[in-house]
Amino acid sequence: MSEAPERTPLRQALRLLIIVEAGLARPRSAVEVVEAAIAGGARAIQLRNKGDTARELVAAGRRLTPLLRRAGALLFVNDRFDVALTLGADGVHLGPEDLPVATVRAVAPEGFLIGRSADDPRLARDSVADGADYIGCGTVFPTSTKSEAGDVIGVEGLRRVVRAVPVPVVGIGGITVERARAVAETGAAGIAVVSAVMRAPDPAAVVHSMLQRFQNS
Amino acid sequence: MSEAPERTPLRQALRLLIIVEAGLARPRSAVEVVEAAIAGGARAIQLRNKGDTARELVAAGRRLTPLLRRAGALLFVNDRFDVALTLGADGVHLGPEDLPVATVRAVAPEGFLIGRSADDPRLARDSVADGADYIGCGTVFPTSTKSEAGDVIGVEGLRRVVRAVPVPVVGIGGITVERARAVAETGAAGIAVVSAVMRAPDPAAVVHSMLQRFQNS
Repeated sequence: MSEAPERTPLRQALRLLIIVEAGLARPRSAVEVVEAAIAGGARAIQLRNKGDTARELVAAGRRLTPLLRRAGALLFVNDRFDVALTLGADGVHLGPEDLPVATVRAVAPEGFLIGRSADDPRLARDSVADGADYIGCGTVFPTSTKSEAGDVIGVEGLRRVVRAVPVPVVGIGGITVERARAVAETGAAGIAVVSAVMRAPDPAAVVHSMLQRFQNS
Repeated sequence: MSEAPERTPLRQALRLLIIVEAGLARPRSAVEVVEAAIAGGARAIQLRNKGDTARELVAAGRRLTPLLRRAGALLFVNDRFDVALTLGADGVHLGPEDLPVATVRAVAPEGFLIGRSADDPRLARDSVADGADYIGCGTVFPTSTKSEAGDVIGVEGLRRVVRAVPVPVVGIGGITVERARAVAETGAAGIAVVSAVMRAPDPAAVVHSMLQRFQNS
């Protein structure tokens, strides 16, 4: 699209990473909630939709792509590098059961972004050495929506990871508006949220409030 | 490897496509069964291992790759185009819930092979128009191991698909040594098998017998 703005720089976009779980947005559509999040200032979206087939993920991604592009927002796909490729997404997010960072980096197009979940400094450093562009770090606070994210590491655990790597680190796990400032104080680039936005009665307002906590980072 | 033979041509390799389900091979390893299948003459392997994570698939694929390369056998990965890419596999096999053929073709490297499941002539023709290099067609006979493959279409249903497309068609679903000749008579390039080889006490012998039915195709 000719009116599309520049792609938001990674560190700036990662002040708030909205993880899309369509099931949690109901009865609203994921598109409706993401639209509101973008209106509130969000510029990074990760398509997760656990349980979706590859074909469903592609369809969901195609519904989101136009509005993300209009805003210069970044699109990441959870786990499925192939879905990210076919959507022309900006990157993929890889967890412990997903493809290794190094194997994706070896075949990814120039400029393709790779995020990696890491809850300790050593794994974070290794991931960056393998080619990760950012780290998703948690679980920072206890949460119900991503039990597979591992142990609760607290803001101190997050701080240790932030200090270990030069790339942006986003905290994840139970982060609410009230807790966002404590996360910002660790030096994290931003936060990743699932329920806090997917389930919010007013997603734009929540996004706006969360972003304010990271205004100076 | 310097001693590696030429890659087996697709149509010839597809005389027998061994679908790997490690769970069915137990207590033997998938590598052991595939090694026997290769010794029996098989030259096409599809890594399926339903339920495996991407990381597990990559590990399983890496265990198979050296022996396939030594034999000039083709490696396909079920569903996960990204796993196929990172393994340097020859191709991917796509079913109805997987990525669309056209979207994979648009981003796949030159020469990358795409198979597509299709149980009727129209879908088969559309798949070839989208860029599929071969068709997996079934369920030919009732079977327990791939209930998701759809209705039983019989050898007549297979014959209709074979006649509809210029690319190789492999029959799948309940095909035993006894039934292989009836499948060969449809003009199919070959057959795809799961249990018949994974569970065989002597996989090399089964493969050898099955291949004989397709000797002249």
